[in-house]
Amino acid sequence: RSGEMAKLTQLIDNEVFRAYATYATIVLLKMMLMSLITAYFRITRKAFVNPEDTASFGKGESAKKYLRTDPDVERVRRGHLNDLENIVPFLGIGLLYALSGPELSTALLHFRIFTGARIAHTFAYLIPLPQPGRGLSWAVAYSVTISMAYKVLKTALYL
Amino acid sequence: RSGEMAKLTQLIDNEVFRAYATYATIVLLKMMLMSLITAYFRITRKAFVNPEDTASFGKGESAKKYLRTDPDVERVRRGHLNDLENIVPFLGIGLLYALSGPELSTALLHFRIFTGARIAHTFAYLIPLPQPGRGLSWAVAYSVTISMAYKVLKTALYL
Amino acid sequence: RSGEMAKLTQLIDNEVFRAYATYATIVLLKMMLMSLITAYFRITRKAFVNPEDTASFGKGESAKKYLRTDPDVERVRRGHLNDLENIVPFLGIGLLYALSGPELSTALLHFRIFTGARIAHTFAYLIPLPQPGRGLSWAVAYSVTISMAYKVLKTALYL
Repeated sequence: RSGEMAKLTQLIDNEVFRAYATYATIVLLKMMLMSLITAYFRITRKAFVNPEDTASFGKGESAKKYLRTDPDVERVRRGHLNDLENIVPFLGIGLLYALSGPELSTALLHFRIFTGARIAHTFAYLIPLPQPGRGLSWAVAYSVTISMAYKVLKTALYL
Repeated sequence: RSGEMAKLTQLIDNEVFRAYATYATIVLLKMMLMSLITAYFRITRKAFVNPEDTASFGKGESAKKYLRTDPDVERVRRGHLNDLENIVPFLGIGLLYALSGPELSTALLHFRIFTGARIAHTFAYLIPLPQPGRGLSWAVAYSVTISMAYKVLKTALYL
Repeated sequence: RSGEMAKLTQLIDNEVFRAYATYATIVLLKMMLMSLITAYFRITRKAFVNPEDTASFGKGESAKKYLRTDPDVERVRRGHLNDLENIVPFLGIGLLYALSGPELSTALLHFRIFTGARIAHTFAYLIPLPQPGRGLSWAVAYSVTISMAYKVLKTALYL
């Protein structure tokens, strides 16, 4: 089966596909970072949602007071959900776009702007920056995904 | 590297794969539309969640009153989350299904019913239609995904 | 086009790719199960969020009392969202990892540990088990994804 494996390796050798693999991984790692930031704020702000998570603070009322929402925790969680809503379309549409035979330079432009805009979005959400900082970074990444979707449908449309 | 590029283009030339690319893109664009509908309701209902989003309405108490939940906004957000919960499995399982060598007509049937059911689900959620409208459209799309998962496991099972 | 179809079938014939297809499907089916568990708890606990879902319980006040949150429903929903946050990165990074030419035994180790850890996470969340049961299962699956991401970037990096 080494022949097949070679064929697969060829896919990952294709430059557009490698660029997709790189930026998709970066943007997914960025999204995964949100879990760690949420955990950090939950622990430092002592704001938990599951009773079993506060057991180490004692029993009964003394632990119950840590079952509460905290504005910083909720802010990170909103940023995380916004990542899911926007990075899932990028993953799917971006993969199909990478397979639709775009120019390498055009593909790199799409992947780089999307990734940069989503990283900017995270900073804008967590600092937070005044609007329209967050709104603009969201709209840029959204538009890049729409542009890739247009290329996919133009190349592959089969209804 | 043009030989490899040609090979990739062959993947997107495959009719089952093109059908997957088309319906996956449509259903992701539909999901992305939920962000715009949420933004529309947040602005028209003046119901925001981040303090920095209400800064244009003035300072202090006059802006604070717009930091509130609105039933229409929450409804769209639930529809959006339900999309994520159901479209993510379709993306992953559907891709593997498209690569598992199904008949073109069978594959089209799966992709079309899933996409139609999820569009119906959005209408059922946002209008809203009386039950079991929303429940049925959810169940149809769910069943289509299960059917594709069965084919994938039957073809590819390697534990 | 049977030649191309054969080529696609070769992809699904590759053992690493078949292993990815198998475990990705299993973990997505597990995630889809959370929808059914949520529905089960909503119905048995009579705790709904959409007014149209309580219409069968009568009109006006008699139905309104079922529009409420229930701790068991909320717990399942948190588990479901945690699945989305962690299984989406596995889907994307795992696919790229499977295409990056890993050893079959190494790939199987990654896929099996991730899948086992996420199933353990669900049990830890729903029973619930005392901490650090849920935390550990989460961290194991998270670390496996990071390990795969490292291999993808090492193989494919193209910035």
